[in-house]
Amino acid sequence: MRIISLASTVLFLLSFSTFANAEQHDFEALKNKYYADHPGKGKYADLWEPIPIQQYWNPVTFYKPPQTLKAEVKAADCVTCHKGITPGWVHAWQDSTHANLDEIRNLSSSDSRHYKKAKLEEIEAGLQKRGVLKKGQKLSEVGCIDCHAGVGKKSMKHHVDLRMPDRAACGECHVQEFAEAEAEKAQKWPQDQWSEGHPSHAMDWKANVETGIWAGMSQREVAQGCDMCHYQQNKCDGCHTRHTFSAAEARKPEACATCHNGVDHNEFEGYMYSKHGVIYETSGKADWDFEVQLKDAITKGGYTAPTCAWCHFEFNGEFSHNLVRKVRWAFNPTPAIADNLDHPWFEERKVAWIGTCSNCHSPRFSKAWLDTADKGTIQGLEVEQEAKKIVQKLYDDGLMVGQKTNRPAPPAPEKDAPGAFFGLFWAKGNNPSFVDRTHAEMWEHDLIKHYKGLFHVNPGGFTYSEGWARLMRRYTEIQDANTRIREMDALKKQVKALSK
Amino acid sequence: MRIISLASTVLFLLSFSTFANAEQHDFEALKNKYYADHPGKGKYADLWEPIPIQQYWNPVTFYKPPQTLKAEVKAADCVTCHKGITPGWVHAWQDSTHANLDEIRNLSSSDSRHYKKAKLEEIEAGLQKRGVLKKGQKLSEVGCIDCHAGVGKKSMKHHVDLRMPDRAACGECHVQEFAEAEAEKAQKWPQDQWSEGHPSHAMDWKANVETGIWAGMSQREVAQGCDMCHYQQNKCDGCHTRHTFSAAEARKPEACATCHNGVDHNEFEGYMYSKHGVIYETSGKADWDFEVQLKDAITKGGYTAPTCAWCHFEFNGEFSHNLVRKVRWAFNPTPAIADNLDHPWFEERKVAWIGTCSNCHSPRFSKAWLDTADKGTIQGLEVEQEAKKIVQKLYDDGLMVGQKTNRPAPPAPEKDAPGAFFGLFWAKGNNPSFVDRTHAEMWEHDLIKHYKGLFHVNPGGFTYSEGWARLMRRYTEIQDANTRIREMDALKKQVKALSK
Amino acid sequence: MRIISLASTVLFLLSFSTFANAEQHDFEALKNKYYADHPGKGKYADLWEPIPIQQYWNPVTFYKPPQTLKAEVKAADCVTCHKGITPGWVHAWQDSTHANLDEIRNLSSSDSRHYKKAKLEEIEAGLQKRGVLKKGQKLSEVGCIDCHAGVGKKSMKHHVDLRMPDRAACGECHVQEFAEAEAEKAQKWPQDQWSEGHPSHAMDWKANVETGIWAGMSQREVAQGCDMCHYQQNKCDGCHTRHTFSAAEARKPEACATCHNGVDHNEFEGYMYSKHGVIYETSGKADWDFEVQLKDAITKGGYTAPTCAWCHFEFNGEFSHNLVRKVRWAFNPTPAIADNLDHPWFEERKVAWIGTCSNCHSPRFSKAWLDTADKGTIQGLEVEQEAKKIVQKLYDDGLMVGQKTNRPAPPAPEKDAPGAFFGLFWAKGNNPSFVDRTHAEMWEHDLIKHYKGLFHVNPGGFTYSEGWARLMRRYTEIQDANTRIREMDALKKQVKALSK
Repeated sequence: MRIISLASTVLFLLSFSTFANAEQHDFEALKNKYYADHPGKGKYADLWEPIPIQQYWNPVTFYKPPQTLKAEVKAADCVTCHKGITPGWVHAWQDSTHANLDEIRNLSSSDSRHYKKAKLEEIEAGLQKRGVLKKGQKLSEVGCIDCHAGVGKKSMKHHVDLRMPDRAACGECHVQEFAEAEAEKAQKWPQDQWSEGHPSHAMDWKANVETGIWAGMSQREVAQGCDMCHYQQNKCDGCHTRHTFSAAEARKPEACATCHNGVDHNEFEGYMYSKHGVIYETSGKADWDFEVQLKDAITKGGYTAPTCAWCHFEFNGEFSHNLVRKVRWAFNPTPAIADNLDHPWFEERKVAWIGTCSNCHSPRFSKAWLDTADKGTIQGLEVEQEAKKIVQKLYDDGLMVGQKTNRPAPPAPEKDAPGAFFGLFWAKGNNPSFVDRTHAEMWEHDLIKHYKGLFHVNPGGFTYSEGWARLMRRYTEIQDANTRIREMDALKKQVKALSK
Repeated sequence: MRIISLASTVLFLLSFSTFANAEQHDFEALKNKYYADHPGKGKYADLWEPIPIQQYWNPVTFYKPPQTLKAEVKAADCVTCHKGITPGWVHAWQDSTHANLDEIRNLSSSDSRHYKKAKLEEIEAGLQKRGVLKKGQKLSEVGCIDCHAGVGKKSMKHHVDLRMPDRAACGECHVQEFAEAEAEKAQKWPQDQWSEGHPSHAMDWKANVETGIWAGMSQREVAQGCDMCHYQQNKCDGCHTRHTFSAAEARKPEACATCHNGVDHNEFEGYMYSKHGVIYETSGKADWDFEVQLKDAITKGGYTAPTCAWCHFEFNGEFSHNLVRKVRWAFNPTPAIADNLDHPWFEERKVAWIGTCSNCHSPRFSKAWLDTADKGTIQGLEVEQEAKKIVQKLYDDGLMVGQKTNRPAPPAPEKDAPGAFFGLFWAKGNNPSFVDRTHAEMWEHDLIKHYKGLFHVNPGGFTYSEGWARLMRRYTEIQDANTRIREMDALKKQVKALSK
Repeated sequence: MRIISLASTVLFLLSFSTFANAEQHDFEALKNKYYADHPGKGKYADLWEPIPIQQYWNPVTFYKPPQTLKAEVKAADCVTCHKGITPGWVHAWQDSTHANLDEIRNLSSSDSRHYKKAKLEEIEAGLQKRGVLKKGQKLSEVGCIDCHAGVGKKSMKHHVDLRMPDRAACGECHVQEFAEAEAEKAQKWPQDQWSEGHPSHAMDWKANVETGIWAGMSQREVAQGCDMCHYQQNKCDGCHTRHTFSAAEARKPEACATCHNGVDHNEFEGYMYSKHGVIYETSGKADWDFEVQLKDAITKGGYTAPTCAWCHFEFNGEFSHNLVRKVRWAFNPTPAIADNLDHPWFEERKVAWIGTCSNCHSPRFSKAWLDTADKGTIQGLEVEQEAKKIVQKLYDDGLMVGQKTNRPAPPAPEKDAPGAFFGLFWAKGNNPSFVDRTHAEMWEHDLIKHYKGLFHVNPGGFTYSEGWARLMRRYTEIQDANTRIREMDALKKQVKALSK
């Protein structure tokens, strides 16, 4: 069994590598596919209109240059003007790698950033090959205009040509990373637990705009809050904040925190309270070298515990911007996953995880822990599924509080259902009822936090603070409400009978 | 419109500067006003008595020197004795600027603390002018006795003269900062949304002791917990912790965290999860120079994101300890603010905010975001206001659970009301009922966190973890309870009719 | 009174010191007692079976070497092989003190780790005395085999001899620390508020496995989550993470965070939001020297605020791994403690605390604060006790929701009771009901967080975010449910009477 798994893993890896290598040198094909795949406003486009801020979350579809400066500007003008208008941009860029390419070229081999020298040469070779640079030409810097109008541009019409860089803009130079990140779209689930390419950073904007309640709710300023994380499909600055665009920043756990925290997936908190996070806090912040590449983190960077990036970029010993290659429970424990963990697709990924953990734990410990986390997750799922039946029955019996008197339909394209996702973000009259909402939180918050706590090894997280103990509470609330509702219904019927 | 706004802003600034400059050189006037404005025990003074710990939160009104040492002590005696008794004080002070003034005098111009040299000279000039120092005399150090008895004292009666430094004590030297901080009291709201000077650090003790439930509750040890933040009116060590009194400390976001966190205004968490906070964590902690003044933070300090102090001290490009000059929603979104955002008072402040954000974002982006945050806040307010009507109606109909049988009045000076603030800190019998409490949390916790999440750019904070999604939950709970209560009431009436 | 207290404190200290000194040189006696005291599976051993991961949490009882490598391996082989298999271990160890004893021997007296030189000599002297080392023999390193098979071993049968180090394994060299930590077991409560030795790290595994619901629940993968903190009795790597085993790590507050956070005892959050934690964040992380011993923290380490370890290791000016010597409320405010705080046992400990705080606060301030915290804790306890009576009465009256129709017994050895602990981790049908669960959270979460917030000086924590304001909410929920349940019961009786 293990041998078969490993063999197919190897085959998979080979096919992936071929794929990745083939793509990495064809920027034009990558770019065309990137735009072809982009959903724009998505399938519910008729239901919503963008508000001004959204042009920054999805410049691909919405960005329009400002009309305040109707002029042709030269590359050097950007800094001259913006030093006064928006000094923060300029100073951040001036301290960045982009503004200091000569420093990179002169790095000694003992410098932990030395790998950037080769990367710069590779990028220049690519640009030369594609004719953006002349043969032998070097980049003097990556200036404002290169990203905001096009690599190598000398001038631009500010009111016409200005663009907010999308993934493809960064990909003009960073072809390898662009290819890796876009490769997430190739993910296929064995029993269609998720549709192709989901869940992933590479399709998170599509996932966002094609969520019914997001498209249907009238409070667009609240709805765009979702976009503020669900824009990785559109841009790279979610992890490499403009205008520093630091790799070291993105290697630190906090870089993931803005999106990966909170009631519905508390990965950051889980990590930080785990021993892994504690080691990062007590040793990593002061002593580890985040300038080294992830592949050298343990040997040269001094890491004595993993980070978000280290585990999730890694796959069978190699590191890439494709983060979905070891995904299994994928944000949402469901019977469709729980019942199929013995499928080779899932088993191979578990083997890959054992490999990851085995960098610092014995393979036996690693497997024992992953087995524990799987079984613990299923135990949580069972509680949620039992509660779900009670909620469904109340709905089927027409007994949800207010169901017959005051339960308006949710906004289109949503349709009414018990314990539905929409009830977390929309409410009117008795839709959702308390029981609906409680069940929605059970599967969308507590069960997910339970499993995230298990897999991120945060003991208090999955036992008492969140996870299991919260699932128990929701179950109690639903059972309690169910009993009270049915007792009231019975009493009403008795009174009705008496009134006749 | 914009032109008018800017013009009046300029006028406002001019008048403010004059005011500030006038005051900054008149310490005696400032001090007299400080004490004249101080409320002492406040308007509910008859209702409560201080407990011993409160002499430290409000030394202005309550502090009495200990009678353990009845002796005249010399300046040098302090360290000699306290090195043994309370070594932490002594060591913290010995490493502080106060104990090392000569080091300040010898700072090279390349040192980021160089500005302190001029500040020291300015302070000494002021003290000389006021006769505390002789002409040309320098401070040798700022020792224990200078703050705990009076600047320049040579000895003191420990049991008579010992004082805990209040704002005026710090202001003896730091006249400029004292004047800036006290200037908060001049804040006037255009339609009396808040009374004069509120909300502000400069009047937070008054706000505290004149809160009905604070004064009325019998658990004084719990009540004094409020004082532990609401003492900025009394002392400066809330931000510049004794006995280091570091400016750099107060420039770091954590300095604000003790008070600005939690269920009713989670500014710190909002910031830390925002991209701003993430940059502080990933770059700021290791690389920024917090010794530089805020005005040089971007250019010399290496800041690539804002901190609490940077945004809230700034006003039209200048930095001051008056933090209320850009306040708009002021802790508490209400219709009185929401309906008047087009008033010049609010518009000017929004223009000032656009200026703040434009240090690192385009003015168009800045305006788009602030518009989004305003509208999103109003959307949250609408949900809360709809729930409020339901709660009020239940109360008016006498249908709150236990309302007719077991709802004692709150302690004086509070008066009973539905969904009132007192219900967060006091409960007896069925006052508050679940519905009261739920509504109190809605306006006092969730709506505030919603708006704080928006303005501190914490997407998960205002969409799903707190804010909007919590408002939806409370709304659901109130609607659900309302329906159940009214169905029960109807059934009771039917049964009563049948019983006749 | 104070004099009596101090006198008995001195006597207590003398007896303790004698005890500790006697033990510290008799490793064999310590080890034998350690194993004799160890509960193994505990008194409910018949009710549960360990799952594979638990051999790592309790190697004392469950660990079996893997059978993958059936061979005799030499000391040098460990690193050779594991460098490839589990590189994280090897690199962490290579950077640790254990791998660099010569560096320790050559530390200059100005190095903050200089104290380790004497410690190493003391350890070697002990090993020589016990014949583990020859007279005059030095340790060349502490390698894998020394901990995983026995100090000084040259080779081992990997499949037979491999062990996971328990407390006694570390104690072979670190006899002093082992003795200190085990001394916690001698703790006796004056009125049996807790049984002997509890609560403590030294008996936390026993406390865990002898908790009814832990032993009785069927979800073993969830239950083992408790073990992940409750294993300090078994191992030392809860604070000194393998394979760095750093003292500096354990001196940082985050080292305690994995276990001391969350809904039922949020010490870490409380500390971090207190001014103490803020100073640690703003000054400590960058400037303090965590390599110095705790006793030199203020004088040489530059500490300007306390850490977890600093306060809890300290007792009357000395520092030790016995953390229970100042325990008073002990995780769980109950009347049995509240009513006996004037007992000398409690008073002496309070005096010791005043001494601790007086390192940085005046004794008067320290006492005023501790008095405030005691009284505030009792105020919270009173609210909980009032609610408890309501819950008990509902149960006695058979009126808990579903009590007569759908309240299954909890799994053995638990027995049914209102508001019981088991309801946080187990639920079936209407057991627990909402009211049970609410009361369980009141005493097990909110009251504890109230008192932890008070004693860790986190004002928002005990006033509004947790603690008092949450106790008010739970009280409100219980009163509200009680009124609704009793009104429903009365109505049912009326209808029943009408139906006759």
